[in-house]
Amino acid sequence: MSGKLGRPVCLVGAGMSKFGAFPDKDSRDLFVEAFQDLRGSVDKGLDPGEIEAVYLGNFSSDLFEHQGHLAPILADWVGLTPRAALRLEDACASGGVTLRQAVLAVAAGAYEVVLAAGVERMTALPTEAVTDTLATAGDVLYEFPAGFTFPGFYAAMATAYAARYGMPYEALWEVARKNHLHASRNDKAQFPMTIREIMDRRIAKAREKGGPVPGWKDEREFLRDPGANPPVAWPLRLFDCSPITDGAAAVLVVAEEVARRFTDRPVRVLGTGQASDACLYGREDLTSLRAAREAAAQAYTAAGVKPSRIRLAEVHDCFTIAEVLAIEDLGFFPPGQGWRATVDGATRWDGPLPVNTSGGLKAKGHPVGASGVAQAVELWKQLRGEAGARQVPGDPDVALAHNVGGTGQTCVVHILGRG
Amino acid sequence: MSGKLGRPVCLVGAGMSKFGAFPDKDSRDLFVEAFQDLRGSVDKGLDPGEIEAVYLGNFSSDLFEHQGHLAPILADWVGLTPRAALRLEDACASGGVTLRQAVLAVAAGAYEVVLAAGVERMTALPTEAVTDTLATAGDVLYEFPAGFTFPGFYAAMATAYAARYGMPYEALWEVARKNHLHASRNDKAQFPMTIREIMDRRIAKAREKGGPVPGWKDEREFLRDPGANPPVAWPLRLFDCSPITDGAAAVLVVAEEVARRFTDRPVRVLGTGQASDACLYGREDLTSLRAAREAAAQAYTAAGVKPSRIRLAEVHDCFTIAEVLAIEDLGFFPPGQGWRATVDGATRWDGPLPVNTSGGLKAKGHPVGASGVAQAVELWKQLRGEAGARQVPGDPDVALAHNVGGTGQTCVVHILGRG
Repeated sequence: MSGKLGRPVCLVGAGMSKFGAFPDKDSRDLFVEAFQDLRGSVDKGLDPGEIEAVYLGNFSSDLFEHQGHLAPILADWVGLTPRAALRLEDACASGGVTLRQAVLAVAAGAYEVVLAAGVERMTALPTEAVTDTLATAGDVLYEFPAGFTFPGFYAAMATAYAARYGMPYEALWEVARKNHLHASRNDKAQFPMTIREIMDRRIAKAREKGGPVPGWKDEREFLRDPGANPPVAWPLRLFDCSPITDGAAAVLVVAEEVARRFTDRPVRVLGTGQASDACLYGREDLTSLRAAREAAAQAYTAAGVKPSRIRLAEVHDCFTIAEVLAIEDLGFFPPGQGWRATVDGATRWDGPLPVNTSGGLKAKGHPVGASGVAQAVELWKQLRGEAGARQVPGDPDVALAHNVGGTGQTCVVHILGRG
Repeated sequence: MSGKLGRPVCLVGAGMSKFGAFPDKDSRDLFVEAFQDLRGSVDKGLDPGEIEAVYLGNFSSDLFEHQGHLAPILADWVGLTPRAALRLEDACASGGVTLRQAVLAVAAGAYEVVLAAGVERMTALPTEAVTDTLATAGDVLYEFPAGFTFPGFYAAMATAYAARYGMPYEALWEVARKNHLHASRNDKAQFPMTIREIMDRRIAKAREKGGPVPGWKDEREFLRDPGANPPVAWPLRLFDCSPITDGAAAVLVVAEEVARRFTDRPVRVLGTGQASDACLYGREDLTSLRAAREAAAQAYTAAGVKPSRIRLAEVHDCFTIAEVLAIEDLGFFPPGQGWRATVDGATRWDGPLPVNTSGGLKAKGHPVGASGVAQAVELWKQLRGEAGARQVPGDPDVALAHNVGGTGQTCVVHILGRG
């Protein structure tokens, strides 16, 4: 919190695996896929021998794959033995924490070139076991025995927010519609399709089968139909929830003084912040995440910028309500106004403040340990003008990533800028 | 590996819980106990509000307690919300990795005051489940299905070493005898007693019960008796293995420029190193750990000292053979000579190079995520002349900690000096 880092740090490469459900891939396969993608992204090429350490974000390979001590295995899998390899964990913020610690290690002078990666293989377990595993990111003494799993946690936040600010629950669907629109332009996304496309597919499938054909006229009717969009934990429905995902992501973190060895267009780490909070049961307010506000304040101070300077953001939309809280906690919109800004299209890729152009956790997918790193991958592309059909117009030069662990016991914020 | 850190870093406090088997204590209780002990160790007092971040080493609260995302919970448990809190994991090296990352974060300028802690609650599970959980620190695809758990891994190293260097297996018991001797002077140890005392207790118990009284004349006879010291994985027997332990440890890591706020006698971090290796099945040599040699080389270079400058060391004796490999890998003794030096008493607390004066993992106990931090706690005491009955004579000024993860896929080495 002393803030000023020892030396400036850049990203000079970024890659990710395809996100999705892959019964034949384990963490090693996913990691290798992300690593290869990263290698291809380094403009002047990357000799793996230049990598001095591997920082790995992973929530629970222990419970998902019954494999601990994953970092050195993955380092070895891509030929990086005997480089230091370590795992960092703060639930769904593991990726952001990993990026941050890699940045600090380079700033400290310990390393010049660090691979910061995240991975999670989730779909090998049955859905109920995944839900129980994810619930270990809450408090297993005081919350889990009371029946809380993650949809329930965020449902509590949604009801508190709606009660306080008069938000109609259907407003949350606009988060999902927007993020699916973005994902439809991201071929690495788990669901690279709009909700309209999902609806049309279901209609086509019903036709094929010769059964009754649903009469949805538009996406809103589709989302209102409890058959198509069933409640998961009231008021949250299926399309309010991010999916269960296998995936990996990686960025190459280097000291600015060596960045030009790799690229003439590095992305700078302008600021980073991290904070913690009590578990949900111990909080006074459910309509905002204190850890997010604190982490954001640290990152803004370090970067010397205000929220109004941010041109686009990747935020932690594990549930639709989480994105609404995020864009308020980050200072983009006043408390209680995030849902309205979303409904108004302010956060669409072509709006004034594009949010989750990658498709977000909602539609790109949410392999929990990888998500924070994947946010940086998206910002890397956008800041370099390489985001293709979803490229934010106007040549964005400052961007923010917001990664939450659990119900907000952890939040990490990074601010990145064109180098 | 660029080596020179941004600014010098010190330890200004150190504490630990009692190590042992505590059915009524979970990770939170153990952590609080270590934190309170640390607070008492800070000469000029510690206002917890001065702590800016919590770095937590933990191997697998996921599998041991079905609790993930432990770091912010523990931070909250001692009133440190909203400070950044994160968990680091590299199996049994989690504690050493945690200390190292805390040092780097301070060196980077991100923080001035960081709490680096480690915790593991292990005894709540049945022993077989603990063995299986620990086995996740190996390779669960290629090693576990072949029947390998940790006693087997280290048994393979012991047979390879004995075959190569002509070591009689009974020489390994000298590691255990020495470390129990040391632990008999450490009231925080799980087994604060010599092997002789253990033997005498058993004899006394047999007498009490009125059954046949064992006729052991000395510790060697006791250790030779397969009834008293049964094989676990040949050639390793019960007294070659560290126990299953609940415990926590913590140190306060600060920038040197603020150290005097806390004490006039800080302990300096002179050097730190970390390296990785393939899993055991993929190695060419089982008689030395490459990660240990690499990490040690980094730490020696950073500290600007040679092995001969080290006055005492805490090394990772998860099994007796591991200590023999350690004292060779660290350059204290030539390859093949470590066992002989041990037999000769060179590593006893009053010998020329005291090793594991705390009792080591063998007798102090091995709560895996805490062990690396507990090593630093012991060195802190020794360097400050506060180790009581086990204080190394001659006013030691430079000491080393060696913490291994898995079968050596990770090793972290720290060199500490009197401030």
